[in-house]
Amino acid sequence: MKITPISGFPEYLPAQRIIEQHFLDVIRQTFELHGFPSIETRAVEPVDRLVGKGGDADKEIYGVTRLADRSEGRSDSDAELGLHFDLTVPFARYVLENAGHLAFPFRRHQIQKVWRGERPQEGRYREFTQADIDVVDVGELAPHFEAEMPLVIAEVFRKLPVGQMVIQVNNRKIPEGFYLGIGIEDVAGTLRIVDKLDKIGPAKVKDLLVEAGRSPEQADQCLALAAIRSEDLSFVDQVRALGVEHPTLDEGLDALAAVIQAGIDNAPGALVADLKIARGLDYYTGTVYETQLVGFESWGSFCSGGRYDSLASDGKTTYPGVGISIGVSRLLGLLIGNGLLRSSRSTPACVLVAVNDEETRAGSTRVATELRARGIPCEVAPKPAKFGKQIRYAERRGIPYVWFPGAGEQGDQVKDIRSGDQVDADPTAWEPPTQDLRPQIIRAES
Amino acid sequence: MKITPISGFPEYLPAQRIIEQHFLDVIRQTFELHGFPSIETRAVEPVDRLVGKGGDADKEIYGVTRLADRSEGRSDSDAELGLHFDLTVPFARYVLENAGHLAFPFRRHQIQKVWRGERPQEGRYREFTQADIDVVDVGELAPHFEAEMPLVIAEVFRKLPVGQMVIQVNNRKIPEGFYLGIGIEDVAGTLRIVDKLDKIGPAKVKDLLVEAGRSPEQADQCLALAAIRSEDLSFVDQVRALGVEHPTLDEGLDALAAVIQAGIDNAPGALVADLKIARGLDYYTGTVYETQLVGFESWGSFCSGGRYDSLASDGKTTYPGVGISIGVSRLLGLLIGNGLLRSSRSTPACVLVAVNDEETRAGSTRVATELRARGIPCEVAPKPAKFGKQIRYAERRGIPYVWFPGAGEQGDQVKDIRSGDQVDADPTAWEPPTQDLRPQIIRAES
Repeated sequence: MKITPISGFPEYLPAQRIIEQHFLDVIRQTFELHGFPSIETRAVEPVDRLVGKGGDADKEIYGVTRLADRSEGRSDSDAELGLHFDLTVPFARYVLENAGHLAFPFRRHQIQKVWRGERPQEGRYREFTQADIDVVDVGELAPHFEAEMPLVIAEVFRKLPVGQMVIQVNNRKIPEGFYLGIGIEDVAGTLRIVDKLDKIGPAKVKDLLVEAGRSPEQADQCLALAAIRSEDLSFVDQVRALGVEHPTLDEGLDALAAVIQAGIDNAPGALVADLKIARGLDYYTGTVYETQLVGFESWGSFCSGGRYDSLASDGKTTYPGVGISIGVSRLLGLLIGNGLLRSSRSTPACVLVAVNDEETRAGSTRVATELRARGIPCEVAPKPAKFGKQIRYAERRGIPYVWFPGAGEQGDQVKDIRSGDQVDADPTAWEPPTQDLRPQIIRAES
Repeated sequence: MKITPISGFPEYLPAQRIIEQHFLDVIRQTFELHGFPSIETRAVEPVDRLVGKGGDADKEIYGVTRLADRSEGRSDSDAELGLHFDLTVPFARYVLENAGHLAFPFRRHQIQKVWRGERPQEGRYREFTQADIDVVDVGELAPHFEAEMPLVIAEVFRKLPVGQMVIQVNNRKIPEGFYLGIGIEDVAGTLRIVDKLDKIGPAKVKDLLVEAGRSPEQADQCLALAAIRSEDLSFVDQVRALGVEHPTLDEGLDALAAVIQAGIDNAPGALVADLKIARGLDYYTGTVYETQLVGFESWGSFCSGGRYDSLASDGKTTYPGVGISIGVSRLLGLLIGNGLLRSSRSTPACVLVAVNDEETRAGSTRVATELRARGIPCEVAPKPAKFGKQIRYAERRGIPYVWFPGAGEQGDQVKDIRSGDQVDADPTAWEPPTQDLRPQIIRAES
C-alpha cells in the first residue's frame, strides 16, 4: 500500500519535534509559574454538545463511530460522538460536570490537540495543538483577572525564540459606549463592519457603514476611534478628544487602562491598547486580546481571547470567565515552514559513548549509566566501528560529545566533536557546559 | 442537556492530573536520558492500514468522518480514516514514510493517546495513553538493543512512586529450541497453551497439551521449562538440567543471559528471567518483556514488548526492531483508583500572595512577578478578604505558603501555613525548600 501524508495532519521529524517540545515546555512552565494547573479532557464530546457552539467550526466536526457499530447497527442509547474542535467547549462541560469538586475561582491550563475538518492551507490544519488558560468563577468574576491573562502570555512569548510579539488589547465597552454615545444602536453590526478594516481599508469600511445606515459623520467617528493605538495610557485622552460621552465608554476606558497599566508594571513593551480590535467583540463582554508577531503582521493573530459573562450555565449557576488561547501549531508551522527556527540536534543525547569492541560494550554501557545518573542524556554507539565512523554517527545527529572509554593514560577521554578538543574525563564527575546539556533552539534571522 | 461522563473516557481532577503529569514527565525524562527523541504521529490512519494489524483490536477501531461529508456524500477519493489503537502501527508507517530523512538505527519514544472501542472495565479504557520506545534498523538489528530496552524501563519504574516493579524477560528461541529438541513441531500452538498457565494452572495446561497431541512426557517437560525463574544466570543451568539439546535453545539461552547480565550490571534487582512468559512469543522473534507490580500481580503486565524481525517493509527494505510500551493510563487508573497515590496539592502554585485591598493589588502582583522570575510558581489572591479567608483559599488547594506584602517591620513576610511559622522575606531573594517548589506525589502504604 502506497504511503502518502494526509493533508492537514502535519507530522514532524525528530529535530522539528524538539522545537515543538521546547515551545510546549515553555508554555506549560509559564502557565504553571502563574498558578494554572493542567487539565486534559477526552478527545470526544457528544455531537449535540459540539453543534451550535463553534460558529463556522460547526460544519467541520469530525464524527467518531466504532466500525463494529456501523456494520452491526448502532444502539440508539449511545450518544453520537465527535472530536472536539477547540478546548473551550470541553472546558465548559468539565466545569459543569465537576463543579462540586473544583475550588472557585478556578484556574486551569489545557494543552491538547483539536480537530477541524476545514480545507487545509498554509498554517491551517485539520489536527492542531492549542494551549489555553482560563479563570472562571461562580456568579461574578473580578475584573483584575482580565489584566492578569496578558501578563502570562507576554511571559510565554518573551521566553520563546519567536521575535517580538505584541499583545493588542481592547474592551468591548469602549466601542459599545462610544457607538451608543453617537447614536448608533446596532453595536454588533457596526463592529462586524469595523472588523474588516485591516482587509479593505478605511474608505471601504466607511462606505459599508453608510450603506448599513450610519451617517457619514458617525462613520468618521467610528474610524477615528478605531485608529487609536497606544502603548501607554494616552489612548484615554485620545478617545476623550473625540468628544463622546457615555457611562459605558467610561467603564471601558477605566478597564482597559487597568490592563495596560498592569502590562507597563510587569511586562513592559508587551501590550498595546489597540481600539481597532473588533474580532470576537460580538461575543466577548469585556477585554479582548489578539497578538501580532512584529514583522509578520500578515500572519494574523496567534493568540486570542477575552472576557465572557457565561462560559457555562446549568440553569441555576452561571460561570463567567476570561481566557486566552495560543495557536501553537499554526505559529510553529509558519516559523518552521519558513526556515526561521532550527534545533541544534535531532536527539536529546548530549554524549555518544563509543564502543571499542563488542566484548567491552558492557563497560561503555556502565559509563552511560554513570552519566545518566547525573542527568546527562547519552547513547551507546550501535557498533564497534572505526572511531571516525562512530564520530560521524554523532555528527549526523548533532550529538556534541563522543566519550572514549580507556582512551587516556588515566582512564577515559571525551571529545567535543565541534572543536576537536579531547580531554581526560571521569564519568562520575564530568559535566558538559549547560548550553550543551539540552538541544538548543536557534532563531534564524529573517 | 444533562451532563454524564462517557464510559471508558476517563478525566482527572487537577490534583490527579498532577500525578499523571509527574508520571509522564519521569517517563519522558528517562527516555531522553537514554537518547530516545520524541515523535508524535497524527491521531488518524487510513482504516485499511489499521485493519489486520491489531489482532483483536481490529474490530474495535473508531472510524472518523466529517459530519459535513456524511450529509453531503463522501468523495470516493478520500481514504476512510480511523483513530490509531496503538503507537506501533503509526510508527511503522512513519518509518516507511520518512525513511529517507531518518538516521538508522533509529531510536524514538512516543507518548500519546490511543483509542479502542472495547467494552470498558476497571483499568481498561476506550481512550488511554501509551508510552513507547523502539529502536529499528535497516536489514539487521544488533542484539545488544534487546538488553538496552529493559534498562530504560527499570529506570522509569525506579523513579516512579509505584513500589517494586519486576521486569520478566524471556526469549522466543528458548521454548522454540526446547520444544523442537523434544520433538514438538507446533511451537506457536504449544506456546498458546502454555500462556494459560497463570489462569488455569499446570494440571489443566498439561491436559490441554495432551489433548492437542503432545505426549504426557512432552507436556511435563514444557511445564518444567515454564517453571524456571531466576534473578541471576542460574536459569541457564536449570534449563540444561532438563537434558534437552538444540542449537536454537543454545542461542536463546545465550541471548537471555546477556539481557539478564546487563540488568545485574546496570539495574540490579529489576530483571528476572521468567521462562513461563509466553504472551507475544508467537509474533516476537527474540527477547520478550512483561512486568509485574510486586504485591499486585493480579493486575497483570503494565509494560510489554519484544524483538520483532519486521516492524515494517516496503518490499525492498525490511526494518527489524525491538520495542516496549508502558500502559500509563491503566497503571495510573489502578493506582489512583485504589487510593495508592495522591498529590500534595491541586495546583502548581507554591505561594499565594495575599492582597490587603484592591488599591494595593498592583504591589502584590509585582511580588508575584519577582517570585516567578526566580522560578517560584505563585498566584495572587483573588479577593482582599480577611487574611484568615485568604489562608483558607491556599489551604483548600494545598498551597504551602502565603505571602503578606508589608506585614513585617522591614517589609514583607511569608507564612508556612502548615507550621504557622511566619518570617520576614524579600521577594527578590526568598526561596522555598526544594521539596515544596513542586507538588509532591505521595505513595500511600497499601
